[in-house]
Amino acid sequence: MKRLLLTGVTGFIGAHCLRLIRNGDYDEVHAASRHERARSESGVIWHAADLRVAAEATRIIAAVRPTHLFHAAWIATPGVYLSSPENFDWLQASIALVRAFAGQGGQRFVGVGSSAEYAPSDTPCDEDRTPLHPASIYGHCKLAFWHAVQGLAQHCKMQAAWGRVFLPFGPGDHPARLIPLALAALRARKPLPLSQGEQLRDFIYAPDAAELLVGLLGASVTGAFNIGSGQAQSVRSVIEAIADRFGARDCLRFGELAARAWEPPMLVANVNKLRDRLGLEARTPMAEALDGLIASAAVPADGTITVP
Amino acid sequence: MKRLLLTGVTGFIGAHCLRLIRNGDYDEVHAASRHERARSESGVIWHAADLRVAAEATRIIAAVRPTHLFHAAWIATPGVYLSSPENFDWLQASIALVRAFAGQGGQRFVGVGSSAEYAPSDTPCDEDRTPLHPASIYGHCKLAFWHAVQGLAQHCKMQAAWGRVFLPFGPGDHPARLIPLALAALRARKPLPLSQGEQLRDFIYAPDAAELLVGLLGASVTGAFNIGSGQAQSVRSVIEAIADRFGARDCLRFGELAARAWEPPMLVANVNKLRDRLGLEARTPMAEALDGLIASAAVPADGTITVP
Repeated sequence: MKRLLLTGVTGFIGAHCLRLIRNGDYDEVHAASRHERARSESGVIWHAADLRVAAEATRIIAAVRPTHLFHAAWIATPGVYLSSPENFDWLQASIALVRAFAGQGGQRFVGVGSSAEYAPSDTPCDEDRTPLHPASIYGHCKLAFWHAVQGLAQHCKMQAAWGRVFLPFGPGDHPARLIPLALAALRARKPLPLSQGEQLRDFIYAPDAAELLVGLLGASVTGAFNIGSGQAQSVRSVIEAIADRFGARDCLRFGELAARAWEPPMLVANVNKLRDRLGLEARTPMAEALDGLIASAAVPADGTITVP
Repeated sequence: MKRLLLTGVTGFIGAHCLRLIRNGDYDEVHAASRHERARSESGVIWHAADLRVAAEATRIIAAVRPTHLFHAAWIATPGVYLSSPENFDWLQASIALVRAFAGQGGQRFVGVGSSAEYAPSDTPCDEDRTPLHPASIYGHCKLAFWHAVQGLAQHCKMQAAWGRVFLPFGPGDHPARLIPLALAALRARKPLPLSQGEQLRDFIYAPDAAELLVGLLGASVTGAFNIGSGQAQSVRSVIEAIADRFGARDCLRFGELAARAWEPPMLVANVNKLRDRLGLEARTPMAEALDGLIASAAVPADGTITVP
């Protein structure tokens, strides 16, 4: 009997993951969320719970008794999540959640980590060699949680894997994040203030990120795995690629915004580990992802891109 | 008004630290412990509390409203502490403790970390360069806690420092730990089964470790600092030095015990950071520490060495 509990599936990455969960792979699929959902056609059993509260997290484990736990729920609001004290609520409640999961015989845990756990590095981040020195509260709390999970995995013989997601973009993204903002402004041919944009980043198409995370859930490997494209792209080059699709290069205002001091010049994933261990890698090239996003998305005035 | 709250001061390292706290340095000195104490002559105000319980940890913060917190309490029982699930209780309750401390305006936090946080390294461990990859549940939980503390320090502007203690020995040590065991056996000229003893370790005399930790508490530096001697000594050389003091080399049975697979060949502190930043370093040579320990200690049959 395989009972899967998913958290965070009303969020950006979580929603893409849920679409890839095949019912045949699990005997029961449960999802816990603050946001009410009726039992969906796809056979997901929904549970209303505020997982920031340790008691609710443990209650939901007792109710579902999952064998598999995929934990994507965490604060992720752009402009807020890196320094919000809500990260401490998520840390404390998430430890309680996984402790309860492991304690009742949970077999496999997969959590969503972040590139924000890494120290700045002028080479692609390697899961087992790049130092982990977060610059943000979010990064510290995610990494604290992953260490707690590793301890629990040792104690309970629960398998644990951790997907460190780099910069996801795609349908369902928050309108305040860079690519939706740029899409909305450039489609409307409005001027777009930007930093110099020389920083190198690893953008990963959200459906690709979900494929890697769900692949990790279905496998038996343990440890941390980067969830990235492995491609170093400057912010400038991505924004220019979007502008070119609307003939709107003249709207770009590079240098109008100051660079944020804590932003490292490079934040890119080494993706060898996931490829070598599971044969998984992101497969959508940036150009194709942008074309698809622009062609398929209904982009309303506020820039929100809905999942088709 | 400087109000200091100490935890873990009925433990090995904590007891040595308490002896070095000078009343003049703080307006009030409080200590929380499961173990009942009367108000001592030295002016310490004792509070009965089981700090493994989050609600008790937050209650004690509300009662004392400390400006300074020195947190040494944690499971440390030899043979048990590395893999005990009690580490998760300490992790969860310690996060609640420091969150409550920071939330009510706590100014400075110093916690007791461990060399068990480091990945195996064939050079002395450097606080900011040696990877942190714990091998034990204890190491994971200590490191998880330190990341949570760093997040809280960013959020609340609380200063936070972390002393990673290497291998302390000295008066008050638990009789089941290596040096008390060896002392008791060799004093009685009993055969002493040992591993080959080639592993290099950083032994630090507990009164020295306490001096460094209390120095860290009184300073304003932040971040992680190794609490070690900086000397790489083989276990064999230390045991032989003890044997020689009793003319008992013939009692040594090197190789009778198997090496423990998880024990790294080398675990030694780079002590430059504490010396360069605070001018502090361990000052008791091993020979002097052993002479002092043997001369002053009443070693009963069970090997317990009491603080004189």
